[in-house]
Amino acid sequence: MFNLARVPSILMLGLIYMAYVLIGGLVFWKIEGDLVQKDISLLLLNKNRLLRKYTCLNQEGLEDVAQVGLSMKGNYTTDGFWKFTSSAVFAATVVTTIYGNMSPSSTAGQIFCVVFALFGIPLNMVVLNRVGKYMLVIERNISCLLQGKTGKRPQRCTCFFVHLVSYLSGATLFFVAPMIVFQQHEGWTYSQAIYYCFITLSTIGFGDFVANNPDKEYPEWYSILMASWIFFGLAWLSLLINHSIDILERL
Amino acid sequence: MFNLARVPSILMLGLIYMAYVLIGGLVFWKIEGDLVQKDISLLLLNKNRLLRKYTCLNQEGLEDVAQVGLSMKGNYTTDGFWKFTSSAVFAATVVTTIYGNMSPSSTAGQIFCVVFALFGIPLNMVVLNRVGKYMLVIERNISCLLQGKTGKRPQRCTCFFVHLVSYLSGATLFFVAPMIVFQQHEGWTYSQAIYYCFITLSTIGFGDFVANNPDKEYPEWYSILMASWIFFGLAWLSLLINHSIDILERL
Repeated sequence: MFNLARVPSILMLGLIYMAYVLIGGLVFWKIEGDLVQKDISLLLLNKNRLLRKYTCLNQEGLEDVAQVGLSMKGNYTTDGFWKFTSSAVFAATVVTTIYGNMSPSSTAGQIFCVVFALFGIPLNMVVLNRVGKYMLVIERNISCLLQGKTGKRPQRCTCFFVHLVSYLSGATLFFVAPMIVFQQHEGWTYSQAIYYCFITLSTIGFGDFVANNPDKEYPEWYSILMASWIFFGLAWLSLLINHSIDILERL
Repeated sequence: MFNLARVPSILMLGLIYMAYVLIGGLVFWKIEGDLVQKDISLLLLNKNRLLRKYTCLNQEGLEDVAQVGLSMKGNYTTDGFWKFTSSAVFAATVVTTIYGNMSPSSTAGQIFCVVFALFGIPLNMVVLNRVGKYMLVIERNISCLLQGKTGKRPQRCTCFFVHLVSYLSGATLFFVAPMIVFQQHEGWTYSQAIYYCFITLSTIGFGDFVANNPDKEYPEWYSILMASWIFFGLAWLSLLINHSIDILERL
């Protein structure tokens, strides 16, 4: 039944949540707002340069060209953008709720996308949960193995040590190593690369940075490595997030 | 310990998962691939029209203008795009892992975004879980109330009836009603509006359709309605998805 005694703690949680979002909004506003002012001046300079260079263009003509150029610069220039491989990658971004750089534009494609996600998202969650549980089992097995060898040390110490090592190796495998790979193959800075790793694995997926861009050339192993990184990285990060939820729930 | 007897069922699940994604990829490829062919011909027509109209532009000039136009058409034309209200909405899209139509472009903003999401996503999940549980409690209370009044009917019948009514009213509240509102205020078709509702509440968030666009004028109540729709809709849909996961886990 409805437990009235718990209402204050829920109101508290709601207030913390609202305060968190509002403070975040404030910080983004300060950081990004200033930057936009600089960008606007730069853009106006560029615009005036273009108007001087191409004398047949007026303000209206410029917007006309920009409108068409918008779609030309997008998905359509690379012939056969919806190849089978990129369509399969797209299907994977739907079920994992990561956003990539594509979206269906036909009505049939949009309706299929809804139905596909309706069954695909729960299926994906079940699979990731299983993989996450096996990761925990492997960690425990290693912990037992170490305890067998160093039987005299107290259990708590080994556990903490194994947790620390598995956390650090996870962070290296899913954040530090991909960061270096992306920095080299995508031409991003280290901070942009780590930002991309987090935005992708947390399934926020802004789409402002896109790895494995269909316009570029990559080594053969790149897309396979990318797919495995996303799959195991998601399982690992959802484990971490579940741990944080456990801690928050107990508050 | 590692249970070997369960390995075949896990392999099976993995195979189903892979087949699901591949078949989805096949369908998207067929549906969208054909459409892109038509779009490319249309774009080439438009491009040739522009080259004839503005005689001072060559291929290179067109791309030059399109490049600058790309950012002019984007976030920068509306002065003060990173207002406080839109920054707060952005902060909410980060913690809910929905993608909106903004992303931070400064290094400081990107780093803050990572840290903000790291604590915000678990917090958001805890809050949504609580709200979802309260929705269940309300459903159960209504069920008990109905049973008290119609005490002679069998319990199972009332339960199924209440489930059905609560499911239908949820679907109406979070999909049918917003669909009508979006169709009227965003100028979308009904199928585009329902596609937007699903892509948003499932947190996939392609960003191909964006409601509450900063370039347009909306009624006062629009953004408040929008925020409540997302918040309670997410809680409701995560309840539904959790139910589906329970069913899948039992298989």
